[in-house]
Amino acid sequence: MATTVIDGRRRRGDESRRAILSDAVNLASIHGLDGLSIGTLAERTGASKSGIVALFGSKLDLQLATIQAARELFLTRVVEPTLRAPRGVTRLWTLCRTWLDYSRGRTFDGGCFFRAAAAEADSKAGPVRDALVAIDDEWIAFVERCVSLAEEELPALRNPQLLAFELIALLDAANRGSLLHGNDHDYDLAEIAMRSRLIAAGADPELLDSIRI
Amino acid sequence: MATTVIDGRRRRGDESRRAILSDAVNLASIHGLDGLSIGTLAERTGASKSGIVALFGSKLDLQLATIQAARELFLTRVVEPTLRAPRGVTRLWTLCRTWLDYSRGRTFDGGCFFRAAAAEADSKAGPVRDALVAIDDEWIAFVERCVSLAEEELPALRNPQLLAFELIALLDAANRGSLLHGNDHDYDLAEIAMRSRLIAAGADPELLDSIRI
Repeated sequence: MATTVIDGRRRRGDESRRAILSDAVNLASIHGLDGLSIGTLAERTGASKSGIVALFGSKLDLQLATIQAARELFLTRVVEPTLRAPRGVTRLWTLCRTWLDYSRGRTFDGGCFFRAAAAEADSKAGPVRDALVAIDDEWIAFVERCVSLAEEELPALRNPQLLAFELIALLDAANRGSLLHGNDHDYDLAEIAMRSRLIAAGADPELLDSIRI
Repeated sequence: MATTVIDGRRRRGDESRRAILSDAVNLASIHGLDGLSIGTLAERTGASKSGIVALFGSKLDLQLATIQAARELFLTRVVEPTLRAPRGVTRLWTLCRTWLDYSRGRTFDGGCFFRAAAAEADSKAGPVRDALVAIDDEWIAFVERCVSLAEEELPALRNPQLLAFELIALLDAANRGSLLHGNDHDYDLAEIAMRSRLIAAGADPELLDSIRI
């Protein structure tokens, strides 16, 4: 009976936490992690300030929990659908197009959470920056791994690390340009550019065009 | 005599303004335009808060003046040296390498001012965002013009707008990556990638390697 009460409390606590973090990632994608105040979150979610402090502790803890919540959403929206595609060029192209949809569909209100957060924190040493660097490293390693698993189908590829760098550069440029100019044009440019990178590396254009995501 | 006094006052006002704006662009490149408080600027420059208000008016006016000061510095560091190079592939490659040096040399303490500011403001409608969008449009038009003036020396170039988009994407990726990872590796990757974009478009590799900036 005591266990049931505690489990019930924990469950309600987890639900409140999830609901607040969902608002927190969207707020932070627009106003930055520094703009993530316990007061604003309380207003927006209807929770009390003391309730938020009880759930998250300090502002820094809230920022770190928000980064982890954004990471989980990114895994669900981008990484998992990519991993469901067969490895090789199919998975690599699925990755590129799934990322474009993730950004274009405004998974986070302010576009890619990590790009906004990194631009804010990259010059400020501390645990927030460390968490974002670790996630960026994970992301680069994931893209490089997808490129590496496609190498057999990319006979003209000379530098896999460079291809990963170029693909990420184009994805970010699309995200940034579309947010700043308020249109989808840069997504189209990025998709054309990435497609021609893969074809230059030896990918079969018919295979690329046959991939549905 | 009255004119001399007024001129003297104006000159001193202009000098104070310039000194404060120089700190403001560096502060904003690290802490963002929202983090640009009149209080912090007063502390940093030794000016009084009321003095700063007298020179700039509201925080919004200060933010807009800071953006214009950053634009002028960018013109001096990137656009003018580029325009001194002979038009064509030489100028285009000078542009790419001058931009890399501008970012690598931390003209602004927090890397490219405009990338940091745009990531902060892109989801928030208002005069700050409008000013940044206008400058970004100017920048894209400048890069496109440099590409267009090189077309005769780029016989395999099919889509000049796409090349401009790719070059800007690679420059930004280098700036972002180096700030986040604290090393120069991404500048090297971006330079290799841009060079191969130009060579794929038909640029003479020997010409590229002969260009000194």
